[in-house]
Amino acid sequence: MSKIADQWLRDILRTLYQRRDLTRSEIIQATGLNPASVSHALRYMLRAGAVVKVGDLQSSGGRKPEVLNLNGEAAYFVGVDLEGHRIRFGLASLIGDIRYRWEYDLEIGHPLDSDKLFEGIRKVLKYLDSRQMARVLAIGVSYPGLLDQQGRLTAVNLGWNKFPLVAELREKASKQLPVELPVFFESDRHSCVRAERWLGCGQQYNDGLYVISERGIGTGFFLEGRAVEGFRDMAGELGHCVIEPAAEDRCNCGKKGCLESIASSDNIVRQYLDKVGRPRFREKMTIHGVYERARRKDEAALAVLARAGKAWGLALSYVVNLLNPEIIILGGDLISGEDVLVPLIKEEIGRHALPELIGGLKIVVSGLGFDIRLKGACSLAFRKSIADPHLLKKMCLPVFAGPTREADRLDAVPSLP
Amino acid sequence: MSKIADQWLRDILRTLYQRRDLTRSEIIQATGLNPASVSHALRYMLRAGAVVKVGDLQSSGGRKPEVLNLNGEAAYFVGVDLEGHRIRFGLASLIGDIRYRWEYDLEIGHPLDSDKLFEGIRKVLKYLDSRQMARVLAIGVSYPGLLDQQGRLTAVNLGWNKFPLVAELREKASKQLPVELPVFFESDRHSCVRAERWLGCGQQYNDGLYVISERGIGTGFFLEGRAVEGFRDMAGELGHCVIEPAAEDRCNCGKKGCLESIASSDNIVRQYLDKVGRPRFREKMTIHGVYERARRKDEAALAVLARAGKAWGLALSYVVNLLNPEIIILGGDLISGEDVLVPLIKEEIGRHALPELIGGLKIVVSGLGFDIRLKGACSLAFRKSIADPHLLKKMCLPVFAGPTREADRLDAVPSLP
Repeated sequence: MSKIADQWLRDILRTLYQRRDLTRSEIIQATGLNPASVSHALRYMLRAGAVVKVGDLQSSGGRKPEVLNLNGEAAYFVGVDLEGHRIRFGLASLIGDIRYRWEYDLEIGHPLDSDKLFEGIRKVLKYLDSRQMARVLAIGVSYPGLLDQQGRLTAVNLGWNKFPLVAELREKASKQLPVELPVFFESDRHSCVRAERWLGCGQQYNDGLYVISERGIGTGFFLEGRAVEGFRDMAGELGHCVIEPAAEDRCNCGKKGCLESIASSDNIVRQYLDKVGRPRFREKMTIHGVYERARRKDEAALAVLARAGKAWGLALSYVVNLLNPEIIILGGDLISGEDVLVPLIKEEIGRHALPELIGGLKIVVSGLGFDIRLKGACSLAFRKSIADPHLLKKMCLPVFAGPTREADRLDAVPSLP
Repeated sequence: MSKIADQWLRDILRTLYQRRDLTRSEIIQATGLNPASVSHALRYMLRAGAVVKVGDLQSSGGRKPEVLNLNGEAAYFVGVDLEGHRIRFGLASLIGDIRYRWEYDLEIGHPLDSDKLFEGIRKVLKYLDSRQMARVLAIGVSYPGLLDQQGRLTAVNLGWNKFPLVAELREKASKQLPVELPVFFESDRHSCVRAERWLGCGQQYNDGLYVISERGIGTGFFLEGRAVEGFRDMAGELGHCVIEPAAEDRCNCGKKGCLESIASSDNIVRQYLDKVGRPRFREKMTIHGVYERARRKDEAALAVLARAGKAWGLALSYVVNLLNPEIIILGGDLISGEDVLVPLIKEEIGRHALPELIGGLKIVVSGLGFDIRLKGACSLAFRKSIADPHLLKKMCLPVFAGPTREADRLDAVPSLP
């Protein structure tokens, strides 16, 4: 019997992680591996329990094709999402679903403390028994802002200026956590795009982009299935494209007329409040309020969204013309604006992009919602784990061969915070 | 002695083709192959003559490092450039230089005839002796316009509407040419970007773009060293990004305010003639005339170039923000505008793109000039040839083992048309 190459295991694990519920022949087709290698590797993973049979397809004769999937209990990954006002922690199973979650609200003006990070990670690990704990493989962290070459993070929302995030987490992990785990880091832009591509609506597409609108605007591209990072890992600054050079709207970046200064959630709210003469209500109003007013045909809200829709559509028409994507996934606050903002965006893209490039283009809202970065962080941990020969081996060890403590497991009902 | 893998040969050939004059250790580093494989493959190629020693480096002691390069005589490629008013044909050596050239002016209103294409190819082959002819490996064709799935080309400048280019050339090649050659096709966008990346100023860069301005505007990207093609192979339509939505300038694509409608060479000339009240002089004036007048401080020329520079700069700032390139290579008529148009473009990119993304960015004019697509077409033929096991083998056959006809070779002095 020939040796099973790690690459076969990786390819099969990645394929099942991204697509779930596949027959043997679909796996062969998707991986491009030869049938004997796939059979050989699958036999090994089925025996260990990393892969399980979940059903049979109907067959017109002969053997019914078995449907296979990953076994969610074969490995666990911790995800940490540092973006926004609320830090999120999650424990994901090998099939990418979040099992335990914890959240921590940042206090404005108080920099985040790394102890709080370990507290959150411990919270999502605490329901695992020792057998499960042994199968937690890695921690993935999705960070906003800029991580420098020395692993120091600068991120406004966390109150961090060159905070030694990488060293802090890697050094303290062994002391602060019940199990020693490697920690991997990734910019939130890439987390989002990977989550959409691997677990969301980008699964069947090779060329696309994910756009997120919250306080700011972020974009991640994937071309031929791979994330685009750029020369200094800074590709995706759609928000700072100057869409109206003559505009007076000033952006955080210092320029005027950037997409973000006109069309981010915060700036839509700003314009609405200016229009109705209540600029001081900024703390009390959110984008959802503007959407709600637009639904009630409030003219100021409609006017502000019309301008934002035009800016979004023009900016996205550039992306369509330049990169010829197959799918554009709209996330963040664009999701809840699906009825009042997204149609304007689509119309404007149609007006400005080349017709030949719009033909097959799909424009959809993200289905992953607020979980997106958390899922992205867990996917990062998965991806790094299968790349590491030691962790890959661990993932394929017999799932139920270790000690089981049934008593512990009965306690393991999650009580959400 | 272990077998030499085709992949080693390919990697070494490609590396030397792109970078020329390398030491053994530079080849090892660039290919990522193990030293034994490189030594083994190099010994084989040096013996055959595909690779030659071109010198020694100084050494502070021990053996002097040998400098190696490809042998230009080991293979030849035919390139055909179908863009513009003048069809270009070239024969390139294995080191990518054009040895023989022929050009054919298109008559306006007369569709190009495929016989004319074979005539051009025969012209660049006619100076080869039989030994050389045996080492011509392939034909690369760089085409403008759109090639459909059935291999039919639609291209305005050639007067072709669904002309069966691929079938025509592949079928007739064996009858019309003195030697049977495979024919490969590639859109001119990709030819340009490959030529710059392999033989021009993009050699040391992984993330960049090539922009060409002639009658229209074309763009090609490479990210992580690979050309970006897009979902339907149509990425790179920078020219049709709507830069001034309120403008009255109508583009060939039917929209108003596209970059091309404001900043392509033809449209710069149009605006200049409108400004000076001579709209009918269009046939007699070129972009070079506008550049010349700007150099003499003609106000109308300066104003038109100022507007074009602004539009170019704004459009390129989008590319910088979105893709974080390391290099922007300006080609076509931008080359001769290096003194009067390019500074305006650079200034405007600086005004609109994010400062963090401008830091390491290089903006240069192309050094390949009018040869760019011809070189790209020859590079296509090279690339396809090394991918084909049979042609790869042919490239590595002993160079001087075949029959030589010295008499023929003496005649082989090129007389340029």
